[in-house]
Amino acid sequence: MQNFTFYNPTKILFGKGQIGKIGKETKAFGTKALLVYGTGSIKKNGIYDTVVSSLTDAGIEIVDFPGARSNPVLSHAVTGIELARQEGVDVIVAVGGGSVIDTAKTIAVGAKTDEDVWKFFTREAAITGALPIVTVVTISASASEMNMAAVITKEQGAQKFSIRSPHIQPKTSILDPTVLFTLTPQYTAYSAVDIITHLLEGYFNNTEPDSILQDRIVEGLIRTVMESTETLLTERNHYNARANIMWAATLGFNGLTTAGMGVVALPAHMIEHSLSSLYDVPHGAGLSIVLPAWMLYVHEKRPAKIARFARRVFHIEKSTEIETARAGIERLKQWFASIGSYTSLADADIPDSDIAKIADNALALAKAWGLKDYTLVVIAEILKLGR
Amino acid sequence: MQNFTFYNPTKILFGKGQIGKIGKETKAFGTKALLVYGTGSIKKNGIYDTVVSSLTDAGIEIVDFPGARSNPVLSHAVTGIELARQEGVDVIVAVGGGSVIDTAKTIAVGAKTDEDVWKFFTREAAITGALPIVTVVTISASASEMNMAAVITKEQGAQKFSIRSPHIQPKTSILDPTVLFTLTPQYTAYSAVDIITHLLEGYFNNTEPDSILQDRIVEGLIRTVMESTETLLTERNHYNARANIMWAATLGFNGLTTAGMGVVALPAHMIEHSLSSLYDVPHGAGLSIVLPAWMLYVHEKRPAKIARFARRVFHIEKSTEIETARAGIERLKQWFASIGSYTSLADADIPDSDIAKIADNALALAKAWGLKDYTLVVIAEILKLGR
Repeated sequence: MQNFTFYNPTKILFGKGQIGKIGKETKAFGTKALLVYGTGSIKKNGIYDTVVSSLTDAGIEIVDFPGARSNPVLSHAVTGIELARQEGVDVIVAVGGGSVIDTAKTIAVGAKTDEDVWKFFTREAAITGALPIVTVVTISASASEMNMAAVITKEQGAQKFSIRSPHIQPKTSILDPTVLFTLTPQYTAYSAVDIITHLLEGYFNNTEPDSILQDRIVEGLIRTVMESTETLLTERNHYNARANIMWAATLGFNGLTTAGMGVVALPAHMIEHSLSSLYDVPHGAGLSIVLPAWMLYVHEKRPAKIARFARRVFHIEKSTEIETARAGIERLKQWFASIGSYTSLADADIPDSDIAKIADNALALAKAWGLKDYTLVVIAEILKLGR
Repeated sequence: MQNFTFYNPTKILFGKGQIGKIGKETKAFGTKALLVYGTGSIKKNGIYDTVVSSLTDAGIEIVDFPGARSNPVLSHAVTGIELARQEGVDVIVAVGGGSVIDTAKTIAVGAKTDEDVWKFFTREAAITGALPIVTVVTISASASEMNMAAVITKEQGAQKFSIRSPHIQPKTSILDPTVLFTLTPQYTAYSAVDIITHLLEGYFNNTEPDSILQDRIVEGLIRTVMESTETLLTERNHYNARANIMWAATLGFNGLTTAGMGVVALPAHMIEHSLSSLYDVPHGAGLSIVLPAWMLYVHEKRPAKIARFARRVFHIEKSTEIETARAGIERLKQWFASIGSYTSLADADIPDSDIAKIADNALALAKAWGLKDYTLVVIAEILKLGR
């Protein structure tokens, strides 16, 4: 195990009926809140009303800021920053999934500085503060509710970049699994892919035998997410299946499974960001194209960990490590397809002729993230394996 | 999954060479520290010097308070409370295992109130504040470094009681696995028993299928602790084995594995506390007597979870659930014996004729913890199964 710091001070309120506590939780950080949310689904399912009543009952003035979309964009966050400054809000309340929370995090940083907020994404400037953030999760996958990261796309140049800072770690996050009952089967599937990819990108970075403790946690979480997703295909309102996925999503990318494992490279996320920024493919759907392609690309040189995954998660055993690994990749693709996610560029209507363009876009992020092995040629090779 | 709050804001600094950061971490909470430690082993292995230099370099005045023993006692903590008040310290630095950290937690509470500190243990008074606590862990088992609990024995009446409060959650804890290299095989074994018992007491409380996520984490941690302990029997300075045990100990009782699982009853800990308070048996050694006895007591009425444990941890499969459970209990006892821990009252030189006396002592704690099913007769029955 490598040296590490683990510090995750977000308070989680988990379960049925917890959303009504948002007012009290927010009150600890101020009396005027910017309410960040998406394109209105929370108005249909009643969550908006619950949140607004609770905030109002707690004596909090609300500045409404709807409109965050999936694959959130910089221009929208910048509008939010201006509004937050102009209104002098004390705290940001985010009600949504990763896109909404990441928009809120970007606003929280931007509202406390005169710097161009994009400079924090390109690492030209360092984050020194942010407004406090409180969240209500309505789509589980990103773990943004309990981590210090945010991802935003700058429309010009289609650059999907990220920030990391303890200042943007949410103070309190409310996770009510019943909120997920309204998620479509499609978005339930995309969320499962995203959670599993977070877990596997860490897992494939880890080196046995040093990673045995973390590996077992990851394997247990992946099997739980898979089983729960399968349950939800036939029983959409299964409370415990939703609860398992909601909590596994948070634990899967809040630092727990990677503590002691060094720097996590996230190459599948890196390449996927280009798919979702160039084509507006749902992030999870893009990942189920890229992750198996990446696994195929590396499996001959580094079969051991993929073979372990095949064994522990799918109980596959072939005569060689490479064959076991390959069968595991095939089974993972089948599983992604079985829940209704994409497994090829063709599924997303992306022509093979675009591969060079996608690779070119991804290269910028590879550079920003310091992934030196991912040259234009390598990224294109991986994308070809995902045709 | 039941509703829960998860909030664990302790910062963990994990790894080789981290102890030198104790001064900087402590400085965040004041300039005068009560240094709480045990009976001097940290002076032999150099940890004391490292801690004192680091604190001194950070400009922190040290008030020395050695003498905490395993199964820490109230009178010693009260002396510490008086010293902390008299010297007006800002912060408590604990260097040791669970006994030292629990002594520090008790002092931290007592120093901030005029109330008799024992009233917080008997639940006659509620904790409203405490001095900040920073820890350096030298024996891993209790997870006291990352939780809000402390256990102390009042000598008069041999009452081993506990407190729980967010105020006593350590601010920062430093975990350096190399510190464990000097642990004797005996104490390595007792620590493993304590960690496994924390994990299993939660596990046996949980109800399938709602607990599938938590169960898998527990099973993974137990297997990791068992394998790592076996490695250490032959290779005492195996860094990764020590690191796995150190981190598993923390994760095993910091709220992670029981989040969403309701109230955890801890009957084996309850009964064991009487063994260690009446006979000064090491806590872990007492647990490896009581836990299998408790499992035997319940296995016919509630075989399912014990059978699952037998299956997942030991790969045992018999023709019935009860037989599988019973074989699992037998295997666990064998494993405890194989690492050199006690598995019967006789091993600890406790005569059968004392069972009534032990049960009588344990009954007081059963009442304090609200374990209504644990009458004098039931506790005595369990102890008889541990003869």
